[in-house]
Amino acid sequence: MNTIIAPEIYAQQWHNSDPLSIASLRGKVVAVHAFQMLCPSCISHGLPQASAIHELYASDQVQVIGLHSVFEHHSVMTPEALKVFIHEYRLGFPIAIDQPVEHGPIPKTMAAYQLQGTPSLVLIDRAGRIRLNHTGRVNDMQVGNAIGQLLKEAPVAEDAPVQKAASAPAATHAPSEKNTDSKKSERCNSDHCSI
Amino acid sequence: MNTIIAPEIYAQQWHNSDPLSIASLRGKVVAVHAFQMLCPSCISHGLPQASAIHELYASDQVQVIGLHSVFEHHSVMTPEALKVFIHEYRLGFPIAIDQPVEHGPIPKTMAAYQLQGTPSLVLIDRAGRIRLNHTGRVNDMQVGNAIGQLLKEAPVAEDAPVQKAASAPAATHAPSEKNTDSKKSERCNSDHCSI
Amino acid sequence: MNTIIAPEIYAQQWHNSDPLSIASLRGKVVAVHAFQMLCPSCISHGLPQASAIHELYASDQVQVIGLHSVFEHHSVMTPEALKVFIHEYRLGFPIAIDQPVEHGPIPKTMAAYQLQGTPSLVLIDRAGRIRLNHTGRVNDMQVGNAIGQLLKEAPVAEDAPVQKAASAPAATHAPSEKNTDSKKSERCNSDHCSI
Amino acid sequence: MNTIIAPEIYAQQWHNSDPLSIASLRGKVVAVHAFQMLCPSCISHGLPQASAIHELYASDQVQVIGLHSVFEHHSVMTPEALKVFIHEYRLGFPIAIDQPVEHGPIPKTMAAYQLQGTPSLVLIDRAGRIRLNHTGRVNDMQVGNAIGQLLKEAPVAEDAPVQKAASAPAATHAPSEKNTDSKKSERCNSDHCSI
Repeated sequence: MNTIIAPEIYAQQWHNSDPLSIASLRGKVVAVHAFQMLCPSCISHGLPQASAIHELYASDQVQVIGLHSVFEHHSVMTPEALKVFIHEYRLGFPIAIDQPVEHGPIPKTMAAYQLQGTPSLVLIDRAGRIRLNHTGRVNDMQVGNAIGQLLKEAPVAEDAPVQKAASAPAATHAPSEKNTDSKKSERCNSDHCSI
Repeated sequence: MNTIIAPEIYAQQWHNSDPLSIASLRGKVVAVHAFQMLCPSCISHGLPQASAIHELYASDQVQVIGLHSVFEHHSVMTPEALKVFIHEYRLGFPIAIDQPVEHGPIPKTMAAYQLQGTPSLVLIDRAGRIRLNHTGRVNDMQVGNAIGQLLKEAPVAEDAPVQKAASAPAATHAPSEKNTDSKKSERCNSDHCSI
Repeated sequence: MNTIIAPEIYAQQWHNSDPLSIASLRGKVVAVHAFQMLCPSCISHGLPQASAIHELYASDQVQVIGLHSVFEHHSVMTPEALKVFIHEYRLGFPIAIDQPVEHGPIPKTMAAYQLQGTPSLVLIDRAGRIRLNHTGRVNDMQVGNAIGQLLKEAPVAEDAPVQKAASAPAATHAPSEKNTDSKKSERCNSDHCSI
Repeated sequence: MNTIIAPEIYAQQWHNSDPLSIASLRGKVVAVHAFQMLCPSCISHGLPQASAIHELYASDQVQVIGLHSVFEHHSVMTPEALKVFIHEYRLGFPIAIDQPVEHGPIPKTMAAYQLQGTPSLVLIDRAGRIRLNHTGRVNDMQVGNAIGQLLKEAPVAEDAPVQKAASAPAATHAPSEKNTDSKKSERCNSDHCSI
């Protein structure tokens, strides 16, 4: 079993919610949906799926968190633009704006979770561990199956041994180097946008 | 919790499989999809969903059973016609033809399960108990969630107390009486065909 | 321009209409949609498109005719079964049952029009000439475009020279010979069923 | 028949094309698709339909023009953001950025055409006259039918009497006054965004 403890959400701003912390959600299943507002597959597939999770499950069982992780075209996918986007698409679940870093295009939470692009779906169990981390499309039945299984698990005891995720952010140096303009045109395909 | 033990499948004939018995599937989750080959919602929704379950799960974990439960238009939804239908639609999972009864239009398994029409989805847990019994559409995320939860349950011990389903078939006398020609035109709507 | 005069519809029976003759529809655009009730692509694509044509156009401008042209599995796609099918799918436009022939599986109208399978769409202009004859899927915009163009044409004069379709039926001997059981499993693909 | 001569396209900038003028397209059918990059129904319905028109017809017969008519949220639907949007959605047809005006939110071409919101589809005949002007969804068969009919018309003679559209822009004063913040939340529904 993957026993990486889910890193925190480093957010510049929250919509539809007060700030949420992964630590404080212990006991619930958490579904983090990372997206970019101009990523076609996020709009056609990822965000509707996140809304469906939000509607299907009681909020004391499953917490959906949208994560706007902009790793390209930063000057147009701004917090102000996202606000309009959330309004026009009537998204109702909590959405965090991933925190930019000083050097490099990949924001802080995206790096910490080692996401490979958008849309990405991360499922975190009641004990705070990452159990699914997938970039690209996952169909609804698979998502329902995964969440259903996690819901049946008991929260682990506070002192259960888990691996620290301290080394995770470091691993993202490599992908951020791929992020050159010359590759721009191949970044988004019909399945996802990749870093 | 619903603790009705799932009745047996009374089949006139099987396709894509040797005869299966519910009793012998103890330990697996079983998804019974009841349909009629001329029910529009079965073709557009129910059968594709049954195929998706069949493809997603390993057969030693989840067993899909199609159940052709004809309760109207018996003279045209014949075993011979079903054989062509299965061939043309390339259905690959086991399909049982529900056994007709001498008096009344509702076949034996449909009556035993008290199904209200087609499509119906019945989920049976590892201990052989009915845990979902729904006529009409259920979306894929809900089905995945329900199966995911059942997969995480341990099979109950052989001697666990469960309620006999002995009285179930009796309850179907009422619905079969509704089955008059005068109501024919309202039986199938965009969601399902009802008895 | 294809100047084949459309052959008559040879019908064993009509649903939703008194018998129609191609000759008597001179002055209208006619859309003949050939289907088989157990052809998957007819149900998912062809019949909904025929219904859309029926709903979009006034009946004094465009006449839709469904043509049940059974060329395989004759024993189960019977007139009685079709009647149930039309009822369950709530098809509202005129539907003719293509007339079987004594020798060979291909019914008479299908042979006269040299259709290659189902679904097939035939468009006939105001002068009674075949202007489109396509087996497989055609998208809605293309169908709308073709009908729109035909609607703008003036009916040709009664004595306009047109090629007789007398030789058309003869040409169907070849396809009917392909109709052997050994090819059965490859006949219907995701686009259409072919003879 | 509506005999309003189509006003010119007042563009701040063009993508995928040198500047096009309505006057110079006389002889072709022109389909102007007005959209906003953050209008949900434009993304799910209008732009795919514009692409379908672009793919179906030869460019010497039908000219598709995308028109980015921003009438709300101007600060985020900028030319720079549109450039990214066109890239990510791989739009291949000519797209004009509607020219902003000094006073009021409604850009110049949108006002001249009296568009009521986005998506809007305007069809212009070979003689340069507006023949369809619809805000909201139109299905593909209807669009194909309308274009097909226009394609069959001969271009009118140069000196045909047509009504000047000089008064058209004036009529837009009213709608622009509706554009207050208090109505913001009701502007985009599942069919379209309205001014």
